[in-house]
Parts: sequence; C-alpha cells; structure tokens
Amino acid sequence: MAVCTVYTTQSLNSTFSSSIKSHLGFHQKNQQLVFLSSNGKKWGSSNKKDGHNTVTNNNSYLITCSAADQQTVVIGLAADSGCGKSTFMRRLTSVFGGAAEPPRGGNPDSNTLISDTTTVICLDDYHSLDRTGRKEKGVTALDPRANDFDLMYEQVKAIKSGVTVDKPIYNHVTGLLDPPELIKPPKILVIEGLHPMYDSRVRDLLDFSIYLDISNEVKFAWKIQRDMAERGHSLESIKASIEARKPDFDAYIDPQKQYADAVIEVLPTKLIPDDNEGKVLRVRLIMKEGVEFFNPVYLFDEGSTISWIPCGRKLTCSYPGIKFSYGPETYYGHEVSVLEMDGQFDRLDELIYVESHLSNLSTKFYGEVTQQMLKHSDFPGSNNGTGFFQTIVGLKIRDLYEQISASRAKAPVEVAKA
Amino acid sequence: MAVCTVYTTQSLNSTFSSSIKSHLGFHQKNQQLVFLSSNGKKWGSSNKKDGHNTVTNNNSYLITCSAADQQTVVIGLAADSGCGKSTFMRRLTSVFGGAAEPPRGGNPDSNTLISDTTTVICLDDYHSLDRTGRKEKGVTALDPRANDFDLMYEQVKAIKSGVTVDKPIYNHVTGLLDPPELIKPPKILVIEGLHPMYDSRVRDLLDFSIYLDISNEVKFAWKIQRDMAERGHSLESIKASIEARKPDFDAYIDPQKQYADAVIEVLPTKLIPDDNEGKVLRVRLIMKEGVEFFNPVYLFDEGSTISWIPCGRKLTCSYPGIKFSYGPETYYGHEVSVLEMDGQFDRLDELIYVESHLSNLSTKFYGEVTQQMLKHSDFPGSNNGTGFFQTIVGLKIRDLYEQISASRAKAPVEVAKA
Repeated sequence: MAVCTVYTTQSLNSTFSSSIKSHLGFHQKNQQLVFLSSNGKKWGSSNKKDGHNTVTNNNSYLITCSAADQQTVVIGLAADSGCGKSTFMRRLTSVFGGAAEPPRGGNPDSNTLISDTTTVICLDDYHSLDRTGRKEKGVTALDPRANDFDLMYEQVKAIKSGVTVDKPIYNHVTGLLDPPELIKPPKILVIEGLHPMYDSRVRDLLDFSIYLDISNEVKFAWKIQRDMAERGHSLESIKASIEARKPDFDAYIDPQKQYADAVIEVLPTKLIPDDNEGKVLRVRLIMKEGVEFFNPVYLFDEGSTISWIPCGRKLTCSYPGIKFSYGPETYYGHEVSVLEMDGQFDRLDELIYVESHLSNLSTKFYGEVTQQMLKHSDFPGSNNGTGFFQTIVGLKIRDLYEQISASRAKAPVEVAKA
Repeated sequence: MAVCTVYTTQSLNSTFSSSIKSHLGFHQKNQQLVFLSSNGKKWGSSNKKDGHNTVTNNNSYLITCSAADQQTVVIGLAADSGCGKSTFMRRLTSVFGGAAEPPRGGNPDSNTLISDTTTVICLDDYHSLDRTGRKEKGVTALDPRANDFDLMYEQVKAIKSGVTVDKPIYNHVTGLLDPPELIKPPKILVIEGLHPMYDSRVRDLLDFSIYLDISNEVKFAWKIQRDMAERGHSLESIKASIEARKPDFDAYIDPQKQYADAVIEVLPTKLIPDDNEGKVLRVRLIMKEGVEFFNPVYLFDEGSTISWIPCGRKLTCSYPGIKFSYGPETYYGHEVSVLEMDGQFDRLDELIYVESHLSNLSTKFYGEVTQQMLKHSDFPGSNNGTGFFQTIVGLKIRDLYEQISASRAKAPVEVAKA
C-alpha cells in the first residue's frame, strides 16, 4: 500500500522566496529517485531507505510515494523562546527511546535534532531575512515578513509525503543563513519555533499542535534570573527588551494558541500569597476535545470539575504543597479539558502518587511518567508541572503516532495530487 | 456464651430522682425473671424472649445475663428539634428493613418507635420537671436541672445489658409525665433528644454518637417557613423564641458535638450568592477518625483534600448544580474527615452518579443509598445532603452493628460488676 503525491516543479520553484532560492528545497543529486505505481511496482531505480521514495521526471513534475503506514506524522510546537535543543523536545524524543542529536558530520550550528523516531527542526531556519536584513528593514524575527512561509509549507508538505529536502539553516551564532542540510522524512517530524501555526497551509499539515504559553510574570522572573543574575544585564534593559518584543509577539505569536490541540500555560503559583519569585509554578495543560487520536488526560472523573490536594493522610508534602485542578472549560470557543498543577514535587513518592491517580495518560506501564521524569531529573522543570505535563504530552504524541500508524495500515490507498 | 451484669437494687433506687421515683425503672411485675449462670444454666424461671434475661433476688441485687452476640448496641443522636418521629430515625430503621412504629396498644402519645431491629427512645421522657414544674422553677427543657440523668443512665445501662425497663413517658401534648411504658432490650437502641452526650456516664454507654447541627441561619429560615407561613406567627415572635432558647442551647446542647463520632452540619448554600431562603443547603458530614467499627466515607482519594462538581460533560445538573468537598480537618481537637454536599439532586441520575463515586459507603449492593433515598422520596431533605448523609449514616450504623455483633460472637465471656 502506498500514498503518492504529485508535485509540479513549476509550483515548487514559484514559491521559493528570492533570498533563499539558491536552497533548492528538494534534494535531487545525492539520492536515487524512484517512481512507484500505487501497487508498489518499481518504474525506476530505487532508494528504499526509510521506506520513502522520491521520483523526478525531466524537472516537469515530481512524484513521491511512501508506504502508507510509514507516512510522517507532523507535530507543531509553538513557543516564544529560542529554538535551541529545548527541554520539551528532549523529553519528547526520550519517550520514544534513544537520544536526539544534531545531524552527524553536519553544520555544528545546525538547529536540528534527530533520533531514531523523531526529527525536530527549528522554524528559525525559515527566516527569509538574516540578522542584518532584519535590521535594515526594521523588522523583528517575530514578524512574518522575516520568515518564508511558502518554503516552510512546501518543505513540511514534502517531508510529510516522504520527500527528502534540503532545509536552510539559520545560524543563531552568526545571524546568517548557512548552507542547507539534508532532512530525510522521519516517523515523526516536529516543527518547533515561533510560527508553526501562523500560516494556515502549514497548520493544515500538522497532525497535532502544541503551544507553550509562558505568562508575562513568569517570563519576566525567568529573564531576571538568567539575564540579570547570570549575564549581568540591568533590570531596566531586561524590561526594555521584553517591552520591545511585546507588540510583535502579541500580533503574530500569541494568536496561534487558538489553533493548538494542547496548550501548556505557565503561571505564577497561587499557593504562596503575592509570590513573584517565579520558582514555584502553576502550570495548566489545556487539551482540546474532539481531536482525532487524542484523548485528554483526566483526574478521577472525566468531564466533571475537580480540585485535589494530594497531600494529606497518605502523602505528606513539603511547603507549599501541591494542588491539582481538572475540569471542562472553553478556550477560544473550543471545548477543552484543563488539568492544572500548582506547586512542585519534592520527593519521588509525591510524583508516583500523583501519576497513579491520573487517567488516560497513555503510559505503557505503571509509573512510566515518573520513570521519564526521574530519567531527566536534571532537566529544568523536572519537579513541577512544566516537566510533568511535557512528559505527559510526549506520551500522548507517542499514542497519537501509534494510532495514526495503525489507522493508516488499515486504510485503503489514497492518492493526493498537488 | 453470655454477658452478665450485677446491680444492687440499693444503687438503683438511690439514683432515682425524687420527681419520678414512682417510675421504678426496672420492670419486676409483668415479666418472668431468671438467673442464669455464665454457662447458661437456669437458676430460676425464664423469659428468654429477645434472648435477654433478668433476675432479681429479694430486692438486694439484680443480675442480668444476655447472649453475648445479642447485647444491645446503643446509638446516641443529639438534635435541637423536638423528639418526634424524626426523619433521621425513619431513615435509619428503614436501612434495617421494616417500619418503626409506636409501641402497640400503648400510650398514643408515646415518643418511642419500635421496629424489628431498632428501638428509638426520646430523651424528653427523662424530663424530671414537667411543663408546669419548669415554669415554676424558671428553667427550660434544655436545662440539665429539668432532666433526670441518673435515671437515664441507669435505664440505658440496663437496656444495654439486656434488662427490660419501665421508661417514663413525657407527654408533649399535655406537658405532663405519663405512666411508664415497657422497653425491652432491642438489637439497636437509639437514644434521641437534647442530651444524649451531656452526662459522661450515658456518653460512655454509647457505641456511636451523632450530633445534628443545624446552623442558626438555616434554623431561622426553617422556623420562618413553618411558624410564619404555616402557623401565622410573627417574625418578631419567631426571633424572640430563638433568642430565648439560645443561652441554654449554647450552654448545654451545643457543647455535646465535641463528643460526637459523626456530626451532620446543615448550612446555607454557597452556590447562590447571598442566599437566605434556606431551600438550597450545604450539608457537612463530619466523621471522627479512629472510631472502632467506623470507617469514614471518602471521595476519590482517602485522606486528601478534594472538591468535585459532578455536573459536567457526563452529568448535566440543573441550577445551581451540586458541589462536593472532602478532606481531613480538625474538629474540637479530634482528627476528622469531612464530606460536604452543597446543592440538591433534581434527578435520579444525579443521585446514583454521586453515590457511585463515593467509597466506604457500607452498602450491601450497588446503588443502595439511591434505593433508600427513592424509597423515602417524600421525606424532608430527600433531594439534598441532609437526607443523603442521614441515609449514609444509617448504613454506617448497620455496618457498625454487624461488626460489633461479629466481634462479640468471637470474644470470650465477660462478666461486668456494678
């Protein structure tokens, strides 16, 4: 069984932006190309590695076919922070086993992380303007005008269809666009960055989308800790830098959360009155209802409204304790379920106790969330809701991937034409 | 196996208060008396009805023996209301099957209710001063000086030990003390009234104690509804009557709740802002920890703190909905678990849904609480926490009775001497 997609090179070339037209997105030199009929009969030479095959014919059209049950699942992760090897991505890839590493022998400044199952690409790589270009035009990296959504769309679509692409690299150190790197279609492609849900065409390619929503108070507290304590910046300059980013952030980044299937909101604790240290966090996992292959996690009684302080006769917690809340809400007009954790885990028994009372976690064995958290106890947020919910979202994505794969294995042949 | 208790008639007679000395508490005329050895060998004539036997010997001492597994379990229920055939008692006796009725062929103004398993006596019957006497001395019925705790103690102790007694009757219609009625030792004796836990000797006889704590706001709302709407009293006279009772109530009745194993608190709802109608109630079931044969009910996770609004995606409730809370608290220095219900059931599915999420209910089959509530849907409080928690307490008492009986059946012979 195969899924085939036909591209005309005309349409591909016409969508490349002028600034990176030299990066021909589709790799045609170093790989053997094949043309498969829908019944799998070979029409040319083949490179069946990864189960994905690509064919070109005199540059007039491009046809790609992949085994139906091996089509790439695409996950979008929107966040305001830089596109480094973020903790969330490390937690996600860890759920699938194996570590995520930069492409071997490639650009040391590559933003990509590859593991056996997942490839995480940073959407900063689709900057159409480099640092100098942005300065000249007076636009920030948050501004859509500094990003090439046409190329982003075409390449994500190609990878999803089984086509290997040559993706540009935005070098965060130099602020320049480096020569492209080869991205082969993985089982799961994560596109991480500022705008994964900004362009409706890219958004429509996502099988699941996540928005990491750090509240202004926490963002400010974190920046103070990092930029003031560790880098010697002044409080004024930190405030000024946050203020300067805010208009574009509010205009182009924040609105994407309405499209997310899951939002992780990070807020100040309510357990300590007037806390502004930003050390104890209240984290909310907002899960959209009715998303195929995604069953929201719940606490005790699905669909009702619950608050739970597990600390009591059976479990003793240290100050200020832990408080969970769960219930149905409405988020940008969508029906959602929200799981909230305020406070932090100080001991292993607190973590496993909480895990054992949550349902729909998509774990494969008892205590898997706890095991994952312990495995990466050195990661930031490992004792609070950020790490806990990131791990849970990782498990949900594994479950989603497995369900999609299973359903595609059963589904009849589909032929999509571009 | 038998439990025998020896009384000297000297001690019995000396404790009778002068006002009702004519009511010799222990029935010696109409019943055959026996003297059983601890191995059950008869020393005299016998009346083995109910498995309880009583012996007297020349008025110098009284010995009573009962089969060990049939010793009466004594329950105390304190409440401010009159001692009518209260709803709570009807719910309790219903749990054991069969209806509770006044003694057949007896005083039509008897306050006693008898069923196969339970006998409910009203402690107003131990008034030492009748209505006129109280007026003359200027004391209320709430005042301990208007009540004969010595007789109360001796008779409850006797019944508990298997002795049939002649209990006085306080006639609520005439305000006089009527001739006594025969009270045979039942499986479960409930002493209901103003002072079941006031006297430490009586208190010590209780196997389980309950305090029904109606808050002033609700008491006032109820009185207005009954006395103003139905009986034509003025608002002023209702206020005055509540105020007049308050000092004695606060001094003698209210303090008993510190001794209760279970307290049912009835408060105004918090679901409707500024509600003072007293129609929607917030009811709290306060359950003492560490009471033998009594395992507090819990919601979802024993010993933690939880709030739960069951109304949501699975269960739709009508306004203002239902909210449950559960958690550990401290009550008069005792560790307790508190289950709270705010709001009311409007439909059967709400009731069974809630029941199915509570644990340690001591039901014998799925839905037994709901079945009991439906059976008595015409009783007051059948749609809110008063009826719900009264029914649950009834089930807990049945469980307590069965556990006590089972433990006594296993226990060695005990001989108690007065």
